[in-house]
Amino acid sequence: MQALPPSFQKLVHELCRLPSIGEKSAMRLAYHLVQGDKGLAQRLSKALVDAARDIRLCSTCFHFADAEECAICRDPSRESELLCVVEKPADVIALERIGEFSGRYHVLHGVWAPLRGQGVESLRLNELMGRLDGEAVQEIILATSSTVEGDATASYIARLVSSKDVRVTRLAQGMPKGGELEYADDLTLSRAFSGRSAVV
Amino acid sequence: MQALPPSFQKLVHELCRLPSIGEKSAMRLAYHLVQGDKGLAQRLSKALVDAARDIRLCSTCFHFADAEECAICRDPSRESELLCVVEKPADVIALERIGEFSGRYHVLHGVWAPLRGQGVESLRLNELMGRLDGEAVQEIILATSSTVEGDATASYIARLVSSKDVRVTRLAQGMPKGGELEYADDLTLSRAFSGRSAVV
Repeated sequence: MQALPPSFQKLVHELCRLPSIGEKSAMRLAYHLVQGDKGLAQRLSKALVDAARDIRLCSTCFHFADAEECAICRDPSRESELLCVVEKPADVIALERIGEFSGRYHVLHGVWAPLRGQGVESLRLNELMGRLDGEAVQEIILATSSTVEGDATASYIARLVSSKDVRVTRLAQGMPKGGELEYADDLTLSRAFSGRSAVV
Repeated sequence: MQALPPSFQKLVHELCRLPSIGEKSAMRLAYHLVQGDKGLAQRLSKALVDAARDIRLCSTCFHFADAEECAICRDPSRESELLCVVEKPADVIALERIGEFSGRYHVLHGVWAPLRGQGVESLRLNELMGRLDGEAVQEIILATSSTVEGDATASYIARLVSSKDVRVTRLAQGMPKGGELEYADDLTLSRAFSGRSAVV
């Protein structure tokens, strides 16, 4: 690194702070950014400033937004009877991609992970309870991950909302499409087995 | 992606243009950049602009520089008798890290890879020949990669400079430190075998 100009070192240093980018990756990225097409660095730089300035969290569901409310919450055609609870904005994108859900979302921004020091108080649960009181929600779909932490979070929320008059559901767990039995982990196989359904 | 604000989509789009960053990685990076510490996006943005503005290639060796010549070429304590030819700036960094080479470098910016459409004319070979005439070089160390393309490039340069009165050497090839014989590929093993040296 000593053999490199300071502004290059600085760029590598900042790239290293990104998740899953180590020093070697950062070097390769920086190399790409200063070589050849200098427009790329300029455009990325502008996109960073614009996004950092514009992006905020939706005041209702906490998904990414560039206004007070996100595009989904602003859409009057989305059903308010169905509320899908997810861990992070990327999960909203994943569910929107399949295009089968016409309700609304609530983004927790985390999971209950006591071993990693993340308690339930950091999740947007007060706001979720507020929505149950204020909106005409009939079903909460707990779409947290199928991990120990995602399951624990779902159980916690299910208990929390048990006093409310809403149906609480959880995404189905089982074999992933295309998954071979031989390579499935024990927990997946066990859940696929216990959740088996009749062949129509 | 439709469910995301335009400035977020734009950021993901620009991040996707970086090498080895796919859409999922770009989403994760963008998520990290707009969440929490907004200073990171600002600092990275500034580092990009600064680097794109400052970084050029050294007019002598073509390593990264922020002046007419790079820090190594400017250093009068580096021996001009030894010239190490490498493929890319990252290789200079790797060699500087071991701290055993006190000569100068010449960065080719590529290898001879006809199958990928990269001919020898894109390498900085005219400039290399010019340095052999103008500088007091006594040994050229061909430190291109131990790949088929790196070997071909080294052979090509060796033939090219054969008319000059310089010693031409190549980095040793053999077993990597810590490498187990059982897992070594055939070519490595064959080269380690043919290059065996007497135990002192």
